[in-house]
Amino acid sequence: MDTKVYLLDGGSLELDHSQLFWGRSPGRRVRFPVYSVLVEHKDGRFLFDTGFNKEVFDALNPGNAQQTDAQTIPGALALIGLAPRDITHVLNSHYHLDHVGGNKFCTCATTVCHKLELEAAANPEPFEARGYADMSFAPHLRRTRTDLGAADDIYTPRFECVTGDQEIAKGVTLFETPGHTPGHYSLMVRLAHRRPMIFTGDACYAQRSIDLGAISGSHVDPRAGYRSMQRLQDLAQEHDAELFFSHDGDAWPNYVKAPGYYC
Amino acid sequence: MDTKVYLLDGGSLELDHSQLFWGRSPGRRVRFPVYSVLVEHKDGRFLFDTGFNKEVFDALNPGNAQQTDAQTIPGALALIGLAPRDITHVLNSHYHLDHVGGNKFCTCATTVCHKLELEAAANPEPFEARGYADMSFAPHLRRTRTDLGAADDIYTPRFECVTGDQEIAKGVTLFETPGHTPGHYSLMVRLAHRRPMIFTGDACYAQRSIDLGAISGSHVDPRAGYRSMQRLQDLAQEHDAELFFSHDGDAWPNYVKAPGYYC
Repeated sequence: MDTKVYLLDGGSLELDHSQLFWGRSPGRRVRFPVYSVLVEHKDGRFLFDTGFNKEVFDALNPGNAQQTDAQTIPGALALIGLAPRDITHVLNSHYHLDHVGGNKFCTCATTVCHKLELEAAANPEPFEARGYADMSFAPHLRRTRTDLGAADDIYTPRFECVTGDQEIAKGVTLFETPGHTPGHYSLMVRLAHRRPMIFTGDACYAQRSIDLGAISGSHVDPRAGYRSMQRLQDLAQEHDAELFFSHDGDAWPNYVKAPGYYC
Repeated sequence: MDTKVYLLDGGSLELDHSQLFWGRSPGRRVRFPVYSVLVEHKDGRFLFDTGFNKEVFDALNPGNAQQTDAQTIPGALALIGLAPRDITHVLNSHYHLDHVGGNKFCTCATTVCHKLELEAAANPEPFEARGYADMSFAPHLRRTRTDLGAADDIYTPRFECVTGDQEIAKGVTLFETPGHTPGHYSLMVRLAHRRPMIFTGDACYAQRSIDLGAISGSHVDPRAGYRSMQRLQDLAQEHDAELFFSHDGDAWPNYVKAPGYYC
């Protein structure tokens, strides 16, 4: 079976331009897409990021989030005849609330996560607490600080902490790209009939991030963030891969969305 | 001789609110004061920060800087009957261009500086290069990377690199407050007739920074930046000191400016 990659539309959010592109052109609101990536692979169904939970967002920032039922994880999976229980692995670029909203539905999945990201989510810097506001997938995480690698306090049945670059299935590789958050991962997927796809996650919101030389305005380590943005460009060159950006309103119309797929 | 502290008005600059207070309320321009601190002490005349050079600023950002001749270092010192050659020590909170503009006039001074700050200025992160745009006080620094502690490539005749908290004269103490830049220092001065004064430098722009819980939008290490902002509040409590903020348009009208002084 050839690996397939589906992009699951997750709705959209809005931020100031200077928050998407650190310090640049403040005062202009920008609406941007949020999506998840389903990798259908002979060894499992890997879901990279799971979008946002509109209720959580509405409570924090009323009127910002736009999301239809078809743009939730259950709704988007239904477009291709799947349900959340069919997901074998959830991979999160990081645990900010617009990347984990659908985790809680994937009750049969192993959750793979960077050790540092789990620690950050469990005990966020005060200025990051809002970013980690949706812990619905791991409701007890903030209460137990003893062994974050333990599975019993995590909503999904299995939780695997990793560090470093990791090929988690043949042709499906997580690359460390910290800076936006401590344990951020980007994902590369090799396909039979096209160039490899690199999903940047929030290490690079958009082509505009590269053009402006601007990381996200939200970050814990800007020096690492700039190195990660460069790393993504280097990886793309090294592997002749195509970059798919996490929140790129200009690129999004050109991406193939589910039920269409890349293979 | 009792120690005296003069605040030397250095003019004003303008930034977006979200750049002064990281990510908060983008789209509103805020004009803020820039000033230097002269500590007249029995062991020397210590100048903490030296404002901006209007020509350098105008080249980068035309129309932003406001500065009269009396708001330059020679002009401001003349208000109290001094000239730049009377300065024995220049201390910089950090080497961003709005804190070093007058260094070059102090040709008889020893320049005291945090080792990490000198390294950052010599080899800035790409996203910090603009901040370190005025190297007029050390014109060869960016060309020689061998021994940054050496004096011969520095405009001022002596250059002393330090690390850690340092009492550089009795009652005149530099406290490490990194985050905004790698080697940032804040200054505490003990006086005979009033509470100690703590000059925050850019580790805390304004009272509003504390009220909003927002460090500067310009920073190399936000986690350190938040710890430093907390450290300043802890130091103020520990020493029953008063915080004097670096760029506080609300507090500035209440500060005593030269030729008046604190003692």
